[in-house]
Amino acid sequence: MNSELSSLKVQDIGEQGLLQRLQRFCSSEIIGDDAAVLVTEPEQSLVVTTDVLVDGVHFSNVTTSPEDAGWRAVAANLSDLAAMGASPLGITVGLGLPGEMRVSWVERLYQGMTECLQKYNTPIVGGDIVRSPVTTLAITAFGQVHPSQIIRRSAAQVGDAIVVTGVHGASRAGLELLLHPEFGQNLNNADKTALIHAHQRPHPRLDVLPLLWKILNSSSFLITGMDSSDGLADAVIQICRASGVGAILERSQISLPTAFEHWLTKEQALEYALYGGEDFELVLCLPQEPAYDLVQQLGQSAAIVGRITSESTVMLHDEKEKFPDQVLNLSQGFQHFNH
Amino acid sequence: MNSELSSLKVQDIGEQGLLQRLQRFCSSEIIGDDAAVLVTEPEQSLVVTTDVLVDGVHFSNVTTSPEDAGWRAVAANLSDLAAMGASPLGITVGLGLPGEMRVSWVERLYQGMTECLQKYNTPIVGGDIVRSPVTTLAITAFGQVHPSQIIRRSAAQVGDAIVVTGVHGASRAGLELLLHPEFGQNLNNADKTALIHAHQRPHPRLDVLPLLWKILNSSSFLITGMDSSDGLADAVIQICRASGVGAILERSQISLPTAFEHWLTKEQALEYALYGGEDFELVLCLPQEPAYDLVQQLGQSAAIVGRITSESTVMLHDEKEKFPDQVLNLSQGFQHFNH
Repeated sequence: MNSELSSLKVQDIGEQGLLQRLQRFCSSEIIGDDAAVLVTEPEQSLVVTTDVLVDGVHFSNVTTSPEDAGWRAVAANLSDLAAMGASPLGITVGLGLPGEMRVSWVERLYQGMTECLQKYNTPIVGGDIVRSPVTTLAITAFGQVHPSQIIRRSAAQVGDAIVVTGVHGASRAGLELLLHPEFGQNLNNADKTALIHAHQRPHPRLDVLPLLWKILNSSSFLITGMDSSDGLADAVIQICRASGVGAILERSQISLPTAFEHWLTKEQALEYALYGGEDFELVLCLPQEPAYDLVQQLGQSAAIVGRITSESTVMLHDEKEKFPDQVLNLSQGFQHFNH
Repeated sequence: MNSELSSLKVQDIGEQGLLQRLQRFCSSEIIGDDAAVLVTEPEQSLVVTTDVLVDGVHFSNVTTSPEDAGWRAVAANLSDLAAMGASPLGITVGLGLPGEMRVSWVERLYQGMTECLQKYNTPIVGGDIVRSPVTTLAITAFGQVHPSQIIRRSAAQVGDAIVVTGVHGASRAGLELLLHPEFGQNLNNADKTALIHAHQRPHPRLDVLPLLWKILNSSSFLITGMDSSDGLADAVIQICRASGVGAILERSQISLPTAFEHWLTKEQALEYALYGGEDFELVLCLPQEPAYDLVQQLGQSAAIVGRITSESTVMLHDEKEKFPDQVLNLSQGFQHFNH
């Protein structure tokens, strides 16, 4: 990119000019009407989710390139769809921008968004660009799901296994490495890069859905679950609350990044996994047998990490009895999440 | 409301506390999952539109109460659905708020949004509330339309009549009266109130759709159109551009608020009508005979204001030949709109 282009500002070309430049990132069918039209399949329900991200609150140039900010914003919304069992249909992008914002920054943001969207064949079908004193990104994602395949939080049954679709704690570790590079001095470069990548380019687990459909096709139970965007502890607690049940999590079963092993204390590693957030894995509750099958099919770091109980608490248990049982609660979760 | 309640700030209760207080405005089915689930009718296409509004840019406490800001934001989005021929299914609300914002302001905003939504049986099905240095409102509305009833901009045919569903210029006049009260000294109070109300509480013309469906049921043409949110001139020009046609508008046929008659010069009145914007009427192109029927059924201030031509221009014509023909163009429209 030449320097003239890279110094071009939003106020130089206006919102209309910017919209024109960004059309190449959008679905070509949608341009030029008051709203976008999408064909949905019959017998599917519509699923909608929305997120607002604000510069300095949810992303910052310190830890996040515009490409990564775009990728992460899309990934978070697609993960909410995956958490409902829904396949994505499209997203809309609302963007508030200061006049002095560089056009190239905006194009890099859209580049990151479309890189993530293309992995899941999902178009940008509409949007709005307005002047704002602070950069703001509002994404609404919509998808479709067959009513019998909706994943809710409220249907967990006593005895269900609790499945995680992958490791937890990597995103939080990656963020710490970005904020405090010296923190990684005992890590090799490959591990460092992988953890940072987990933070910058998380993957919504839409790939899990076809496996769940296969399980649901040959059975009569519901799958309960949500994503772990606010941490594994939060996900389990929210599910238990909504379902009126409790849970017991087994310390040693919680999948951690292998890099944690010789780098973090067990307590630190567990804190990242339980409270770190933004790993965007799915936390699913289903009967033991299909849960075991699911974990086998997912492979890698998928695991059964606990089971649903009739208690009113979420308990962290150590089968080696080195640590005493510990009750997890939301206020603890949020404290950890916010600090 | 007592003073303790009215001085409560967002930072006193946090985003979670605020979300809880706002749940009474939202659809009860949607609370507590990662995303909302909505049932759409089979054979209907999904229509999606999104708007971002920023404090100080798109609304201000000078001319707009929080209730009116909420109403107007919803009305603009529902009008985009109406402009596509779509019936609303729901909206999501993304809200960025400074910590020192009063909780009562936010509740009044939601009050105004739901007042408008209730008129059209449309629920708030999801949302996100985040901290932001500037109050920002991002609304995404989605609706459904049968594919044969989609209203696009690009299908206008030479000879089509151009129909407006109501008066133009009222919203802009209302805004001027709010900004410069002395401007209304020759107006009676009822007219003043009505014009201000037109600005503060515009009505999306979803009521027009059943009439259009009846017309389309017994015929084989498409209805072309959009809403007049950016002014009547802009709507006609956009339609002509998208359809590759021209238009001739008849000065005397453009419906104006009766209050304009003894208050504004003919030129001023026409400028408000053509370039004022935010009247949120529909501008529709269809063959002469059904156009005439439609205007009869709509009554009030609906009118045929011109026709589609094979020229490449949009011409303003005066049948009394007092004014010369005048070519309307977008840059003129935008100049007027922005000044």
